[in-house]
Amino acid sequence: MTEKKLSTDSYKGVRDFYPEDMAIQRYIFETWSKTAERFGFERYDASILESSELYKAKGAENEELVNEQTYTFIDRGDREVTLRPEMTPTVARMVAGARHELTFPLRWYSIPNLFRYERPQRGRLREHWQFNCDIFGADDISADIEMIALSYQTLIDFGATPEMFEILLNDRREMADLYNSVGIIDEEIIAAITRLTDRKKKISAEEYHTYLLEIVGDELLAKKITHIVEDQSGTNKVLEGVRSLGIDNIRIDRTIARGFNYYTSTVFEIVDCDPTNNRSMLGGGRYDNLTTMFSGDAISGIGFGMGDVTMRDFLETHALIPAHIRSTAPHVMVIPMETEQNLFAEQVAMHIRKAGHKVATDIGTRKVGKKIGSASDKGCRFVIVIGEQEMKTDSLTIKNLLSGEERINTLSALMNFLNEA
Amino acid sequence: MTEKKLSTDSYKGVRDFYPEDMAIQRYIFETWSKTAERFGFERYDASILESSELYKAKGAENEELVNEQTYTFIDRGDREVTLRPEMTPTVARMVAGARHELTFPLRWYSIPNLFRYERPQRGRLREHWQFNCDIFGADDISADIEMIALSYQTLIDFGATPEMFEILLNDRREMADLYNSVGIIDEEIIAAITRLTDRKKKISAEEYHTYLLEIVGDELLAKKITHIVEDQSGTNKVLEGVRSLGIDNIRIDRTIARGFNYYTSTVFEIVDCDPTNNRSMLGGGRYDNLTTMFSGDAISGIGFGMGDVTMRDFLETHALIPAHIRSTAPHVMVIPMETEQNLFAEQVAMHIRKAGHKVATDIGTRKVGKKIGSASDKGCRFVIVIGEQEMKTDSLTIKNLLSGEERINTLSALMNFLNEA
Repeated sequence: MTEKKLSTDSYKGVRDFYPEDMAIQRYIFETWSKTAERFGFERYDASILESSELYKAKGAENEELVNEQTYTFIDRGDREVTLRPEMTPTVARMVAGARHELTFPLRWYSIPNLFRYERPQRGRLREHWQFNCDIFGADDISADIEMIALSYQTLIDFGATPEMFEILLNDRREMADLYNSVGIIDEEIIAAITRLTDRKKKISAEEYHTYLLEIVGDELLAKKITHIVEDQSGTNKVLEGVRSLGIDNIRIDRTIARGFNYYTSTVFEIVDCDPTNNRSMLGGGRYDNLTTMFSGDAISGIGFGMGDVTMRDFLETHALIPAHIRSTAPHVMVIPMETEQNLFAEQVAMHIRKAGHKVATDIGTRKVGKKIGSASDKGCRFVIVIGEQEMKTDSLTIKNLLSGEERINTLSALMNFLNEA
Repeated sequence: MTEKKLSTDSYKGVRDFYPEDMAIQRYIFETWSKTAERFGFERYDASILESSELYKAKGAENEELVNEQTYTFIDRGDREVTLRPEMTPTVARMVAGARHELTFPLRWYSIPNLFRYERPQRGRLREHWQFNCDIFGADDISADIEMIALSYQTLIDFGATPEMFEILLNDRREMADLYNSVGIIDEEIIAAITRLTDRKKKISAEEYHTYLLEIVGDELLAKKITHIVEDQSGTNKVLEGVRSLGIDNIRIDRTIARGFNYYTSTVFEIVDCDPTNNRSMLGGGRYDNLTTMFSGDAISGIGFGMGDVTMRDFLETHALIPAHIRSTAPHVMVIPMETEQNLFAEQVAMHIRKAGHKVATDIGTRKVGKKIGSASDKGCRFVIVIGEQEMKTDSLTIKNLLSGEERINTLSALMNFLNEA
């Protein structure tokens, strides 16, 4: 009878990061981080565990989201806990909690992992990471302009050119004014139109028209609304401000609404212009009332979030992942010929590391030829092979795997050769 | 009637990382990462969500741990899911899953967050991060020696001196031999003695004796065992090997057992020598059979884990956190005097960033004096104040907050001043 063996698969809808994938993930996180810090943003973080209340507080729609689309469970202390599905409520909680110690405007960023309990599909997994940037306590539209500039610069810092992507801008207050101008005043009807229009690009013109008619009940009114949301000639001060920073791949798109209820005016998205990856990669907006669910005055905020999965898809679509970041090879591989030389190899490696080099030993039991082959395949720059002779004489042979050049000398003398390379 | 306000507290037993704490956390993670990579370790990661089976497979003791000390819940697909309480089972799963594509020996590290459902206390929270390093596929003791050298070097790279900490080494096979030598052969009795001895430093000599008597039922035998576990004169090849690398703050401690069942021979800990923080900071050992819970042959492993909470306690106890890492201030703060100058300030900031500097704007509505004061408190190096005049003339004033020196010139001319600083 054999013991039941466990599967080596990861849990459904989440990813294992083997070193090659991890290297790409780190490259993405580090680039995000560098760009945010050049804009003066400070990094924060929090636990993935949050009280479920935090997500229910925003209204009935969110209660449904908490119940059906999140990982929520009761802990042994009878608390209802949720694995955070987004970062904005957490950051609002932290800002509200420390409001008296913080100096505004505040620029904060984070790279949290987020959880959604939904069917895994391309670009949407159950766990993903997100680059989250927010400015708190700045009501002026220059904050909106800066946030858009930061989102633009993030892609530029990955080597993207402005032709590869487009920034789509809208404003919820302007939309309300436009709807008011054709006689639609009722907030619930506006909300329904907004939700439908948000999906406009994903459905056919006929479907859009049918659903719109259901909401407004009048053919002429439906046409007027369609005219409003399809009009690309609009402009506003945020658009002009962004352009004044030398950013031209931005336009008004009246269909942009963003899903979250809490946005109050500016909303924006970045979409990939490549037809094979024509998706929204980033979304954000201004939310002026989010901290009011805690005690104290409202603190205005504007922010965006950008996912790691869509980011990597964008980089791969446009061939923007630099080859060198995939290599995680040590600079020097010290190769003992037999197990008897393993400890000496460790001593040599320890010595070389003192000069700051990345050094590993191949203390496996394979033949020396195989070991050298692996070091070369991996991308190591140097190998030092150690046999019985080398242990006795203190004279070592180092080989540059790129040039084929070899040197034989004492370890101290060889250090110069290594340091020059 | 007022709406019920939410608490701004984090969930029980977890931490919020405000920028100052986050800066320390990042310093710890980056130092860990650099040391591991200098030893040729490659970084991997995985999701915090794992099938609960993974933790139950190691035996009944673990089933209890899964049920009582982990966050475990049933997902909507009726799968039992656990928030990972440790990383070793995950890395064993990943290594076993890719065994045919990987080249051994494998050196992998990770900095995962781990979850334990226990009462929060000093140094033990419900969520913590851990530096996890493992070598797979190297049976020779040079791997054990290297792992101990890596754990030593990690502390040295934080600026610790060898007097600040001590490495305690033991070997489970040697312990079995020692117990056998006084006539104790039964594995369950050895396991019971091991569990008790692991707690020896936390209980009194009397308590230890009483419990030991209960296990072995014989006064003389209890004395022999006490003699064995208190003997510090022992040595072994791992100890000698570590010393041959120039590491002297290591000794045999026969009470070291480490909690996990899966360790098979070498086990080690690092303890802080400061009497105010006299705790274990790191623990590890060799586990030769862990991958056998998946299909395929056994792949030997040796690894250690080091927590972020105990690491930070150690650094604080020995005053090893460098002051400069706490500062997250931008290099330049651009300060508009009035809201009308905000957009111009954003344009100036955008220009300076192109030279790679960290630049923020203070687009709040406070008085300019307050804004300069905040920039100075925060640790900004330069301020550029922009009023109506500056917008008209294209001539800007930059002030070095450290030296007090001021320059007035065009932005392009001022860039040199900034770049030199």
